[in-house]
Amino acid sequence: MKHNFNAGPSILPKEVFEEASRAIVDFNNTGLSILEIGHRTPLFEAVMDEAVSLVKELMKLSPDKEVLFLHGGASTQFFQVPMNFLSQEKKAAYLDCGVWGTKAIKEAKLFGQVHVVGSSSDKNYTYIPHGYDVPNDAAYFHYTTNNTIEGTQMHSIPQCNVPLIADMSSDILSRDLDFNQFDFIYAGAQKNIGAAGVNLVVVDKDFLLKANQHLPSMMDYRVHVANGSMLNTPPVFAIYVCLLTLRWLKKLGGIPAIEKLNKQKASLLYTTLEKSSLFHLPVHQEDRSLMNAVFTMTDASLEKDFLLLCKREGMIGIEGHRNVGGFRVSMYNAMPMSSVEALTELINEFINKYSS
Amino acid sequence: MKHNFNAGPSILPKEVFEEASRAIVDFNNTGLSILEIGHRTPLFEAVMDEAVSLVKELMKLSPDKEVLFLHGGASTQFFQVPMNFLSQEKKAAYLDCGVWGTKAIKEAKLFGQVHVVGSSSDKNYTYIPHGYDVPNDAAYFHYTTNNTIEGTQMHSIPQCNVPLIADMSSDILSRDLDFNQFDFIYAGAQKNIGAAGVNLVVVDKDFLLKANQHLPSMMDYRVHVANGSMLNTPPVFAIYVCLLTLRWLKKLGGIPAIEKLNKQKASLLYTTLEKSSLFHLPVHQEDRSLMNAVFTMTDASLEKDFLLLCKREGMIGIEGHRNVGGFRVSMYNAMPMSSVEALTELINEFINKYSS
Repeated sequence: MKHNFNAGPSILPKEVFEEASRAIVDFNNTGLSILEIGHRTPLFEAVMDEAVSLVKELMKLSPDKEVLFLHGGASTQFFQVPMNFLSQEKKAAYLDCGVWGTKAIKEAKLFGQVHVVGSSSDKNYTYIPHGYDVPNDAAYFHYTTNNTIEGTQMHSIPQCNVPLIADMSSDILSRDLDFNQFDFIYAGAQKNIGAAGVNLVVVDKDFLLKANQHLPSMMDYRVHVANGSMLNTPPVFAIYVCLLTLRWLKKLGGIPAIEKLNKQKASLLYTTLEKSSLFHLPVHQEDRSLMNAVFTMTDASLEKDFLLLCKREGMIGIEGHRNVGGFRVSMYNAMPMSSVEALTELINEFINKYSS
Repeated sequence: MKHNFNAGPSILPKEVFEEASRAIVDFNNTGLSILEIGHRTPLFEAVMDEAVSLVKELMKLSPDKEVLFLHGGASTQFFQVPMNFLSQEKKAAYLDCGVWGTKAIKEAKLFGQVHVVGSSSDKNYTYIPHGYDVPNDAAYFHYTTNNTIEGTQMHSIPQCNVPLIADMSSDILSRDLDFNQFDFIYAGAQKNIGAAGVNLVVVDKDFLLKANQHLPSMMDYRVHVANGSMLNTPPVFAIYVCLLTLRWLKKLGGIPAIEKLNKQKASLLYTTLEKSSLFHLPVHQEDRSLMNAVFTMTDASLEKDFLLLCKREGMIGIEGHRNVGGFRVSMYNAMPMSSVEALTELINEFINKYSS
């Protein structure tokens, strides 16, 4: 029995693995593999249509929003967004809350002026900045909703008077937000949506009108909208895994149901860690992520033993990101409560061993 | 029993489907799905390393060549290549032999001057142009080795004095070529290499030195080389399917062995079609593709019946591309001789029925 706390690619629901595995040898009783069907066939068009429609339903998107599945990962969006919506005469506002935001800022600077409205780099990104101003003449405001590496999460939607763009790679579909407040949302699929190699993009139709002209076709969101995410051969299998995961989420009760579970999982873990001074939680309490819990040992020499215990219990993916060290527990949608319970039991065992 | 003549995504070896299916529920007896393993773990690093090494071995690449697996499809490379190697002060030479070449030319024009050295558009791309000159001051010369849609293939490597770039999406690994003559090769994986959603790129180290500066990280081949194709989360599963297909090809005897089979399959099909005036083969004989055979019916009213016969025998993917009409039979590496034999039997049956 493995408990997979990987930060991404990460655990997906067991039934998704099973169904995806079947589809590789026989997709929908066609006698064909999902890997060998043409993307311009009714077989795959049905996959794409249902996936798009489930995203709209689960996120309660208004008819003003377009849903795309595009090649690549969030790192592709880091430059594709400014390539479409920024230029040398324009200015974009970015909030800098961690590694991913920093990368997005770096790419945006290639296309125009970037105004960093706030940053938590002064304290190792252990909190979400407040009290910043987004200039009214910015082409857009970009932020990262959840910082996978640093374990922070923005728990409310920032208010501003310019188009709002969010990188939701590590917490999309995990909590109820008014997604219609965003002009542009993107998320690499490999945490809460499906398999690596595809991006989910939600874009406002009016915002699209502001996009730059003369872009490479594969970079132009308007072209992808016009072609229903099939300008070229899409990442067929990755999109199919998204569909299976979206179906699973709907069956479970949608975003409100998973949010409740996610809160229970995170609460159990944080409460357990807080019980003992053996553990140090660097993130400000109000900014803690429900998806990625980051902690270190007060006595770093104990880290090795903790990792050994984890290994004994089949727990993987617990090591912190190489930039941060310590530990990181990722608890995405598909992470069952039972795995978090197993981990907290192990933490309690560890506390008993070393607190005496 | 299905015979899958899809043009791409297309048939892959049966053992690849079976192994990929197993890996989705249990990858290498780890108890984990290939979809949930971290890409920066020894588990996946071994996949990437072996895939890269098999490409080098099968293509007999010199140590001067770098092998990359990048997000997207050939359509991504249509603009990524000129973004790296062309600029407004430079000129690139392109050969226009069909839909894909035309698309590549369109994207290149966004980045610099494009000189189309030859085109077969005058005769519906039914032949490969000869006697063209590639200017010595071109930044590079780009051509498509096999035209999936039009059914033509360039059977020798064009000679020129500038860096040579080829889109090999639909015939890579299918025939023995001196791949070291190319400065840059790219291919969408979904025909002869693996699953949709990843590109194979082979690039010459010296040629890389000529790339433009200040590119978006995800577009910069040098950055991908420096990061071993893992600047960001790669399309893990698609690359794994490539690995399985590469292993299968090696076991079979590599490129020389598959080339022999591919010639036998194509020869059987073309010979059978040539027997009867019911069929029209639009492509000049010397330019016929070993991968995609295109034909029409002399009497178009018989097309429907032919399709019905194909359907009866479980043959799919036979309809021609929407731009061309008629029929197209794709016979990529994984297409077994038995399927081509079944098709030729059906063609003979059709000839007997209508020639009497």
